[in-house]
Amino acid sequence: MTHRGLFVTFEGGDGVGKTTQAALLEEWLTTEGMTVVRTREPGGTDVGRLIRDIVLHHRGEVAPRAEALLYAADRAHHVETVVRPALARGDIVIQDRYLDSSVAYQGAGRVLGRDEVRDLSVWATGGLLPDLTVLLDLDPDDARRRLDADDKPFDRLESEQDEFHVRVRAEFLALAAAEPERFLVLDAARSADELAAEVRGRVSLVIGSTWTGHVPTAD
Amino acid sequence: MTHRGLFVTFEGGDGVGKTTQAALLEEWLTTEGMTVVRTREPGGTDVGRLIRDIVLHHRGEVAPRAEALLYAADRAHHVETVVRPALARGDIVIQDRYLDSSVAYQGAGRVLGRDEVRDLSVWATGGLLPDLTVLLDLDPDDARRRLDADDKPFDRLESEQDEFHVRVRAEFLALAAAEPERFLVLDAARSADELAAEVRGRVSLVIGSTWTGHVPTAD
Repeated sequence: MTHRGLFVTFEGGDGVGKTTQAALLEEWLTTEGMTVVRTREPGGTDVGRLIRDIVLHHRGEVAPRAEALLYAADRAHHVETVVRPALARGDIVIQDRYLDSSVAYQGAGRVLGRDEVRDLSVWATGGLLPDLTVLLDLDPDDARRRLDADDKPFDRLESEQDEFHVRVRAEFLALAAAEPERFLVLDAARSADELAAEVRGRVSLVIGSTWTGHVPTAD
Repeated sequence: MTHRGLFVTFEGGDGVGKTTQAALLEEWLTTEGMTVVRTREPGGTDVGRLIRDIVLHHRGEVAPRAEALLYAADRAHHVETVVRPALARGDIVIQDRYLDSSVAYQGAGRVLGRDEVRDLSVWATGGLLPDLTVLLDLDPDDARRRLDADDKPFDRLESEQDEFHVRVRAEFLALAAAEPERFLVLDAARSADELAAEVRGRVSLVIGSTWTGHVPTAD
Protein backbone atom coordinates (compact mmCIF):
# COMPACT_ATOMS: atom_id res chain seq x y z
CA MET A 1 0.00 0.00 0.00
CA THR A 2 2.14 2.88 -1.24
CA HIS A 3 1.18 6.36 -2.31
CA ARG A 4 3.07 9.45 -3.38
CA GLY A 5 1.53 11.89 -0.92
CA LEU A 6 1.55 12.00 2.86
CA PHE A 7 -1.38 11.17 5.13
CA VAL A 8 -1.35 12.85 8.54
CA THR A 9 -4.19 12.47 11.05
CA PHE A 10 -4.89 14.28 14.31
CA GLU A 11 -6.55 12.32 17.08
CA GLY A 12 -7.70 12.89 20.65
CA GLY A 13 -10.84 13.83 22.56
CA ASP A 14 -12.90 16.95 22.04
CA GLY A 15 -11.23 20.12 23.25
CA VAL A 16 -7.62 18.96 22.96
CA GLY A 17 -6.74 21.34 20.12
CA LYS A 18 -6.85 19.12 17.02
CA THR A 19 -8.31 21.85 14.80
CA THR A 20 -5.74 24.42 15.93
CA GLN A 21 -2.81 22.08 15.29
CA ALA A 22 -4.18 20.93 11.93
CA ALA A 23 -4.51 24.58 10.88
CA LEU A 24 -0.96 25.43 12.01
CA LEU A 25 0.47 22.45 10.16
CA GLU A 26 -1.46 23.33 7.03
CA GLU A 27 -0.22 26.92 7.22
CA TRP A 28 3.39 25.83 7.55
CA LEU A 29 3.26 23.24 4.77
CA THR A 30 1.51 25.66 2.44
CA THR A 31 4.17 28.29 3.16
CA GLU A 32 6.75 25.63 2.31
CA GLY A 33 5.11 25.31 -1.08
CA MET A 34 3.28 22.05 -0.61
CA THR A 35 -0.26 21.26 -1.64
CA VAL A 36 -2.36 20.43 1.38
CA VAL A 37 -5.82 18.90 1.50
CA ARG A 38 -7.35 19.51 4.89
CA THR A 39 -10.34 17.36 5.74
CA ARG A 40 -12.23 15.65 8.53
CA GLU A 41 -14.35 12.68 9.50
CA PRO A 42 -17.16 12.19 9.93
CA GLY A 43 -18.84 14.34 7.32
CA GLY A 44 -15.94 15.22 5.01
CA THR A 45 -18.07 14.65 1.87
CA ASP A 46 -21.64 15.39 0.80
CA VAL A 47 -22.53 11.71 1.19
CA GLY A 48 -20.81 11.77 4.58
CA ARG A 49 -22.89 14.72 5.74
CA LEU A 50 -26.09 12.89 4.80
CA ILE A 51 -24.84 9.87 6.74
CA ARG A 52 -23.97 11.99 9.75
CA ASP A 53 -27.44 13.53 9.66
CA ILE A 54 -28.93 10.05 9.98
CA VAL A 55 -26.81 9.17 12.99
CA LEU A 56 -27.42 12.50 14.72
CA HIS A 57 -31.11 12.83 13.99
CA HIS A 58 -31.78 9.31 15.21
CA ARG A 59 -29.40 9.43 18.15
CA GLY A 60 -30.12 6.64 20.57
CA GLU A 61 -32.39 4.91 18.08
CA VAL A 62 -29.85 3.65 15.57
CA ALA A 63 -28.72 0.11 16.39
CA PRO A 64 -25.04 0.03 17.49
CA ARG A 65 -23.86 -2.09 14.58
CA ALA A 66 -25.80 0.09 12.15
CA GLU A 67 -24.14 3.18 13.59
CA ALA A 68 -20.68 1.62 13.24
CA LEU A 69 -21.49 0.63 9.65
CA LEU A 70 -22.73 4.13 8.83
CA TYR A 71 -19.52 5.69 10.12
CA ALA A 72 -17.55 3.10 8.15
CA ALA A 73 -19.56 3.99 5.02
CA ASP A 74 -18.75 7.66 5.52
CA ARG A 75 -15.09 6.70 5.87
CA ALA A 76 -15.11 4.46 2.79
CA HIS A 77 -16.60 7.19 0.63
CA HIS A 78 -14.32 9.87 2.02
CA VAL A 79 -11.17 7.81 1.52
CA GLU A 80 -12.16 6.78 -2.01
CA THR A 81 -13.25 10.20 -3.25
CA VAL A 82 -11.06 12.63 -1.27
CA VAL A 83 -8.07 11.07 0.48
CA ARG A 84 -6.81 8.55 -2.06
CA PRO A 85 -7.06 10.92 -5.05
CA ALA A 86 -5.12 13.56 -3.08
CA LEU A 87 -2.44 11.07 -2.07
CA ALA A 88 -2.21 9.83 -5.66
CA ARG A 89 -1.53 13.43 -6.77
CA GLY A 90 1.27 13.65 -4.21
CA ASP A 91 -0.58 16.06 -1.91
CA ILE A 92 -0.39 16.13 1.84
CA VAL A 93 -3.67 15.18 3.51
CA ILE A 94 -4.23 16.59 7.00
CA GLN A 95 -7.24 14.99 8.58
CA ASP A 96 -9.13 15.60 11.80
CA ARG A 97 -10.05 12.15 13.20
CA TYR A 98 -9.76 8.82 11.40
CA LEU A 99 -10.06 5.15 12.29
CA ASP A 100 -8.32 5.51 15.67
CA SER A 101 -11.25 7.66 16.83
CA SER A 102 -13.70 4.93 15.89
CA VAL A 103 -11.71 2.31 17.76
CA ALA A 104 -11.10 4.48 20.83
CA TYR A 105 -14.68 5.67 21.24
CA GLN A 106 -16.09 2.23 20.56
CA GLY A 107 -13.60 0.63 22.94
CA ALA A 108 -14.61 3.14 25.61
CA GLY A 109 -18.30 2.60 24.95
CA ARG A 110 -17.91 -1.16 25.30
CA VAL A 111 -20.86 -2.03 23.09
CA LEU A 112 -18.89 -3.47 20.19
CA GLY A 113 -15.41 -4.94 20.25
CA ARG A 114 -12.37 -2.84 19.35
CA ASP A 115 -11.05 -5.43 16.92
CA GLU A 116 -14.26 -5.75 14.95
CA VAL A 117 -14.58 -1.98 14.69
CA ARG A 118 -11.01 -1.72 13.52
CA ASP A 119 -11.51 -4.53 11.00
CA LEU A 120 -14.54 -2.69 9.67
CA SER A 121 -12.55 0.50 9.12
CA VAL A 122 -9.66 -1.37 7.57
CA TRP A 123 -12.05 -3.02 5.11
CA ALA A 124 -13.85 0.28 4.45
CA THR A 125 -10.61 2.02 3.55
CA GLY A 126 -8.97 -0.82 1.67
CA GLY A 127 -6.32 -0.87 4.40
CA LEU A 128 -5.25 2.77 4.20
CA LEU A 129 -3.37 3.74 7.36
CA PRO A 130 -1.92 7.21 8.05
CA ASP A 131 1.80 7.82 7.61
CA LEU A 132 1.67 9.79 10.83
CA THR A 133 -0.95 10.13 13.55
CA VAL A 134 -0.58 12.95 16.07
CA LEU A 135 -2.35 12.10 19.32
CA LEU A 136 -3.04 15.19 21.38
CA ASP A 137 -3.33 13.79 24.89
CA LEU A 138 -5.07 15.76 27.59
CA ASP A 139 -6.76 15.10 30.90
CA PRO A 140 -10.54 15.19 30.17
CA ASP A 141 -11.05 17.72 32.98
CA ASP A 142 -8.67 20.12 31.28
CA ALA A 143 -10.32 19.50 27.93
CA ARG A 144 -13.71 20.27 29.39
CA ARG A 145 -12.43 23.47 30.96
CA ARG A 146 -11.25 24.54 27.53
CA LEU A 147 -14.59 23.74 25.96
CA ASP A 148 -16.74 25.27 28.63
CA ALA A 149 -15.64 28.25 30.70
CA ASP A 150 -18.69 27.85 32.94
CA ASP A 151 -17.91 26.56 36.40
CA LYS A 152 -21.18 24.78 37.15
CA PRO A 153 -21.06 21.86 39.60
CA PHE A 154 -20.96 18.24 38.34
CA ASP A 155 -24.30 16.55 38.04
CA ARG A 156 -24.63 12.80 37.76
CA LEU A 157 -24.79 12.72 33.97
CA GLU A 158 -21.73 14.90 33.59
CA SER A 159 -19.89 12.66 35.99
CA GLU A 160 -20.75 9.61 33.90
CA GLN A 161 -19.65 11.39 30.77
CA ASP A 162 -16.41 12.14 32.52
CA GLU A 163 -15.82 8.44 33.18
CA PHE A 164 -16.40 7.83 29.51
CA HIS A 165 -13.88 10.45 28.43
CA VAL A 166 -11.32 9.00 30.83
CA ARG A 167 -11.77 5.66 29.08
CA VAL A 168 -11.53 7.26 25.62
CA ARG A 169 -8.22 8.82 26.62
CA ALA A 170 -6.89 5.47 27.84
CA GLU A 171 -7.98 3.80 24.60
CA PHE A 172 -6.15 6.38 22.51
CA LEU A 173 -2.99 5.93 24.58
CA ALA A 174 -3.20 2.16 24.18
CA LEU A 175 -3.51 2.51 20.41
CA ALA A 176 -0.47 4.77 20.32
CA ALA A 177 1.53 2.33 22.46
CA ALA A 178 0.68 -0.48 20.04
CA GLU A 179 1.96 1.44 17.01
CA PRO A 180 4.75 3.73 18.23
CA GLU A 181 6.15 4.27 14.73
CA ARG A 182 2.89 5.67 13.41
CA PHE A 183 1.98 7.76 16.44
CA LEU A 184 3.39 10.97 17.85
CA VAL A 185 1.90 11.48 21.31
CA LEU A 186 2.01 15.03 22.62
CA ASP A 187 0.99 16.53 25.93
CA ALA A 188 -1.78 18.86 24.75
CA ALA A 189 -1.48 20.97 27.91
CA ARG A 190 1.62 22.58 26.38
CA SER A 191 1.34 25.79 24.34
CA ALA A 192 0.00 25.63 20.81
CA ASP A 193 3.28 26.99 19.44
CA GLU A 194 5.37 24.38 21.22
CA LEU A 195 3.10 21.62 20.00
CA ALA A 196 3.16 22.96 16.44
CA ALA A 197 6.96 22.93 16.49
CA GLU A 198 6.97 19.28 17.61
CA VAL A 199 4.51 18.38 14.87
CA ARG A 200 6.59 20.19 12.24
CA GLY A 201 9.70 18.34 13.35
CA ARG A 202 8.08 14.95 13.09
CA VAL A 203 6.39 15.74 9.77
CA SER A 204 9.74 16.85 8.36
CA LEU A 205 11.23 13.52 9.36
CA VAL A 206 8.40 11.56 7.78
CA ILE A 207 8.59 13.65 4.62
CA GLY A 208 12.28 12.93 4.43
CA SER A 209 11.79 9.20 4.77
CA THR A 210 8.59 8.38 2.88
CA TRP A 211 7.34 11.31 0.85
CA THR A 212 8.11 11.25 -2.85
CA GLY A 213 6.25 14.38 -3.90
CA HIS A 214 7.77 17.82 -4.26
CA VAL A 215 10.34 18.14 -1.45
CA PRO A 216 10.82 21.68 -0.11
CA THR A 217 14.34 23.05 -0.17
CA ALA A 218 14.01 25.08 3.06
CA ASP A 219 12.87 23.79 6.43
CA MET B 1 -28.33 -18.64 17.68
CA THR B 2 -31.84 -19.79 18.55
CA HIS B 3 -35.12 -17.90 18.50
CA ARG B 4 -38.74 -18.82 19.12
CA GLY B 5 -40.17 -17.49 15.87
CA LEU B 6 -39.52 -18.41 12.27
CA PHE B 7 -37.55 -16.39 9.75
CA VAL B 8 -38.45 -16.93 6.09
CA THR B 9 -36.87 -14.95 3.26
CA PHE B 10 -37.75 -14.74 -0.42
CA GLU B 11 -34.93 -14.26 -2.89
CA GLY B 12 -34.48 -13.95 -6.63
CA GLY B 13 -34.19 -11.26 -9.29
CA ASP B 14 -36.73 -8.55 -10.01
CA GLY B 15 -39.92 -9.80 -11.62
CA VAL B 16 -39.78 -13.38 -10.34
CA GLY B 17 -42.82 -13.03 -8.07
CA LYS B 18 -41.33 -12.58 -4.60
CA THR B 19 -43.97 -10.11 -3.48
CA THR B 20 -46.81 -12.31 -4.68
CA GLN B 21 -45.48 -15.39 -2.91
CA ALA B 22 -44.71 -13.48 0.29
CA ALA B 23 -48.28 -12.18 0.30
CA LEU B 24 -49.76 -15.65 -0.29
CA LEU B 25 -47.67 -17.15 2.50
CA GLU B 26 -48.64 -14.35 4.86
CA GLU B 27 -52.31 -14.85 4.02
CA TRP B 28 -52.13 -18.58 4.70
CA LEU B 29 -50.20 -18.29 7.95
CA THR B 30 -52.52 -15.56 9.20
CA THR B 31 -55.52 -17.73 8.39
CA GLU B 32 -53.86 -20.50 10.37
CA GLY B 33 -53.82 -18.17 13.37
CA MET B 34 -50.16 -17.19 13.36
CA THR B 35 -48.73 -13.74 13.84
CA VAL B 36 -46.80 -12.66 10.78
CA VAL B 37 -44.45 -9.72 10.36
CA ARG B 38 -43.96 -8.99 6.70
CA THR B 39 -41.02 -6.80 5.84
CA ARG B 40 -38.36 -6.06 3.26
CA GLU B 41 -34.82 -4.90 2.67
CA PRO B 42 -33.56 -2.44 1.82
CA GLY B 43 -35.68 0.23 3.43
CA GLY B 44 -37.70 -1.77 5.97
CA THR B 45 -37.26 0.93 8.66
CA ASP B 46 -37.27 4.72 8.78
CA VAL B 47 -33.50 4.74 9.15
CA GLY B 48 -33.29 2.28 6.28
CA ARG B 49 -35.34 4.52 4.01
CA LEU B 50 -32.99 7.43 4.75
CA ILE B 51 -30.05 5.17 3.91
CA ARG B 52 -31.69 4.00 0.70
CA ASP B 53 -32.28 7.62 -0.29
CA ILE B 54 -28.55 8.27 -0.01
CA VAL B 55 -27.67 5.32 -2.23
CA LEU B 56 -30.31 6.11 -4.82
CA HIS B 57 -29.85 9.88 -4.95
CA HIS B 58 -26.11 9.49 -5.36
CA ARG B 59 -26.26 6.52 -7.69
CA GLY B 60 -22.97 6.03 -9.43
CA GLU B 61 -21.24 8.45 -7.11
CA VAL B 62 -21.16 6.43 -3.90
CA ALA B 63 -17.92 4.45 -3.55
CA PRO B 64 -18.55 0.67 -3.83
CA ARG B 65 -17.43 -0.13 -0.30
CA ALA B 66 -19.46 2.77 1.05
CA GLU B 67 -22.54 1.44 -0.75
CA ALA B 68 -22.00 -2.06 0.65
CA LEU B 69 -21.57 -0.59 4.15
CA LEU B 70 -24.73 1.49 3.79
CA TYR B 71 -26.77 -1.56 2.82
CA ALA B 72 -25.21 -3.45 5.73
CA ALA B 73 -26.16 -0.58 8.07
CA ASP B 74 -29.73 -0.74 6.82
CA ARG B 75 -29.69 -4.48 7.48
CA ALA B 76 -28.18 -4.13 10.95
CA HIS B 77 -30.80 -1.63 12.00
CA HIS B 78 -33.64 -3.61 10.46
CA VAL B 79 -32.60 -6.88 12.08
CA GLU B 80 -32.08 -5.27 15.48
CA THR B 81 -35.29 -3.24 15.58
CA VAL B 82 -37.75 -5.32 13.51
CA VAL B 83 -36.67 -8.91 12.85
CA ARG B 84 -35.12 -9.96 16.16
CA PRO B 85 -37.90 -8.50 18.33
CA ALA B 86 -40.50 -10.30 16.18
CA LEU B 87 -38.61 -13.60 16.38
CA ALA B 88 -38.21 -13.16 20.14
CA ARG B 89 -42.01 -12.81 20.42
CA GLY B 90 -42.41 -16.07 18.48
CA ASP B 91 -43.78 -14.39 15.35
CA ILE B 92 -43.13 -15.50 11.80
CA VAL B 93 -41.07 -13.01 9.82
CA ILE B 94 -41.56 -13.08 6.05
CA GLN B 95 -38.99 -10.93 4.36
CA ASP B 96 -38.45 -9.83 0.78
CA ARG B 97 -34.66 -9.99 0.15
CA TYR B 98 -31.93 -10.49 2.75
CA LEU B 99 -28.22 -11.17 2.76
CA ASP B 100 -28.32 -13.59 -0.18
CA SER B 101 -29.39 -10.68 -2.40
CA SER B 102 -26.36 -8.67 -1.31
CA VAL B 103 -24.02 -11.55 -2.02
CA ALA B 104 -25.62 -12.47 -5.36
CA TYR B 105 -25.76 -8.93 -6.74
CA GLN B 106 -22.28 -8.12 -5.50
CA GLY B 107 -20.92 -11.38 -6.88
CA ALA B 108 -22.51 -10.63 -10.25
CA GLY B 109 -21.19 -7.07 -10.21
CA ARG B 110 -17.66 -8.28 -9.52
CA VAL B 111 -16.53 -5.10 -7.79
CA LEU B 112 -16.25 -6.52 -4.29
CA GLY B 113 -15.74 -10.12 -3.29
CA ARG B 114 -18.67 -12.36 -2.36
CA ASP B 115 -17.03 -13.52 0.85
CA GLU B 116 -16.31 -10.05 2.17
CA VAL B 117 -19.84 -8.91 1.40
CA ARG B 118 -21.23 -11.95 3.16
CA ASP B 119 -18.94 -11.41 6.15
CA LEU B 120 -20.18 -7.84 6.36
CA SER B 121 -23.81 -8.95 6.46
CA VAL B 122 -23.08 -11.67 8.96
CA TRP B 123 -21.41 -9.12 11.23
CA ALA B 124 -24.19 -6.58 10.67
CA THR B 125 -26.85 -9.08 11.74
CA GLY B 126 -24.95 -10.74 14.55
CA GLY B 127 -25.03 -13.94 12.50
CA LEU B 128 -28.80 -14.17 11.97
CA LEU B 129 -29.56 -16.55 9.11
CA PRO B 130 -33.07 -17.41 7.87
CA ASP B 131 -34.68 -20.70 8.87
CA LEU B 132 -35.86 -20.99 5.29
CA THR B 133 -34.98 -19.12 2.11
CA VAL B 134 -37.24 -19.53 -0.90
CA LEU B 135 -35.34 -18.84 -4.13
CA LEU B 136 -37.67 -18.07 -7.00
CA ASP B 137 -35.59 -18.97 -10.01
CA LEU B 138 -36.47 -17.59 -13.42
CA ASP B 139 -34.76 -16.96 -16.72
CA PRO B 140 -34.02 -13.20 -16.80
CA ASP B 141 -35.71 -12.91 -20.20
CA ASP B 142 -38.93 -14.25 -18.72
CA ALA B 143 -38.60 -11.96 -15.72
CA ARG B 144 -38.16 -8.97 -17.98
CA ARG B 145 -41.20 -9.92 -20.03
CA ARG B 146 -43.20 -9.98 -16.82
CA LEU B 147 -41.89 -6.58 -15.77
CA ASP B 148 -42.28 -4.91 -19.11
CA ALA B 149 -44.97 -5.87 -21.59
CA ASP B 150 -43.38 -3.62 -24.22
CA ASP B 151 -41.66 -5.49 -27.02
CA LYS B 152 -38.99 -2.94 -27.88
CA PRO B 153 -35.76 -4.23 -29.46
CA PHE B 154 -32.63 -4.72 -27.34
CA ASP B 155 -30.25 -1.82 -27.32
CA ARG B 156 -26.69 -2.21 -26.14
CA LEU B 157 -27.33 -1.12 -22.57
CA GLU B 158 -30.25 -3.48 -22.17
CA SER B 159 -28.11 -6.28 -23.50
CA GLU B 160 -25.42 -5.56 -20.92
CA GLN B 161 -28.01 -5.47 -18.19
CA ASP B 162 -29.20 -8.82 -19.41
CA GLU B 163 -25.72 -10.30 -18.99
CA PHE B 164 -25.72 -8.94 -15.46
CA HIS B 165 -29.04 -10.55 -14.61
CA VAL B 166 -27.85 -13.86 -16.01
CA ARG B 167 -24.91 -13.65 -13.59
CA VAL B 168 -27.18 -12.69 -10.69
CA ARG B 169 -29.29 -15.78 -11.38
CA ALA B 170 -26.22 -18.01 -11.42
CA GLU B 171 -25.01 -16.49 -8.14
CA PHE B 172 -28.34 -17.18 -6.45
CA LEU B 173 -28.29 -20.79 -7.67
CA ALA B 174 -24.75 -21.25 -6.38
CA LEU B 175 -25.77 -19.93 -2.96
CA ALA B 176 -28.69 -22.35 -2.87
CA ALA B 177 -26.46 -25.26 -3.87
CA ALA B 178 -24.05 -24.42 -1.04
CA GLU B 179 -26.81 -24.48 1.60
CA PRO B 180 -29.43 -26.98 0.42
CA GLU B 181 -31.01 -27.29 3.87
CA ARG B 182 -31.78 -23.60 4.15
CA PHE B 183 -32.91 -23.10 0.55
CA LEU B 184 -36.02 -24.13 -1.30
CA VAL B 185 -35.43 -23.49 -5.03
CA LEU B 186 -38.57 -23.21 -7.13
CA ASP B 187 -39.07 -22.76 -10.85
CA ALA B 188 -40.79 -19.40 -10.87
CA ALA B 189 -42.23 -20.05 -14.33
CA ARG B 190 -44.84 -22.26 -12.66
CA SER B 191 -48.22 -20.85 -11.62
CA ALA B 192 -48.46 -18.72 -8.47
CA ASP B 193 -50.83 -21.22 -6.88
CA GLU B 194 -48.53 -24.19 -7.49
CA LEU B 195 -45.58 -22.25 -6.09
CA ALA B 196 -47.59 -21.17 -3.05
CA ALA B 197 -48.51 -24.80 -2.33
CA GLU B 198 -44.84 -25.82 -2.47
CA VAL B 199 -43.91 -22.98 -0.13
CA ARG B 200 -46.68 -23.92 2.31
CA GLY B 201 -45.50 -27.53 2.33
CA ARG B 202 -41.92 -26.60 3.14
CA VAL B 203 -42.91 -23.99 5.72
CA SER B 204 -45.09 -26.61 7.44
CA LEU B 205 -42.11 -28.95 7.64
CA VAL B 206 -39.86 -26.25 9.06
CA ILE B 207 -42.51 -25.22 11.57
CA GLY B 208 -42.83 -28.84 12.64
CA SER B 209 -39.10 -29.23 13.17
CA THR B 210 -37.88 -25.90 14.53
CA TRP B 211 -40.70 -23.58 15.47
CA THR B 212 -41.57 -23.35 19.14
CA GLY B 213 -44.27 -20.68 18.97
CA HIS B 214 -48.00 -21.34 18.75
CA VAL B 215 -48.44 -24.40 16.51
CA PRO B 216 -51.67 -24.47 14.51
CA THR B 217 -53.90 -27.50 14.95
CA ALA B 218 -55.12 -27.61 11.34
CA ASP B 219 -52.95 -27.63 8.22
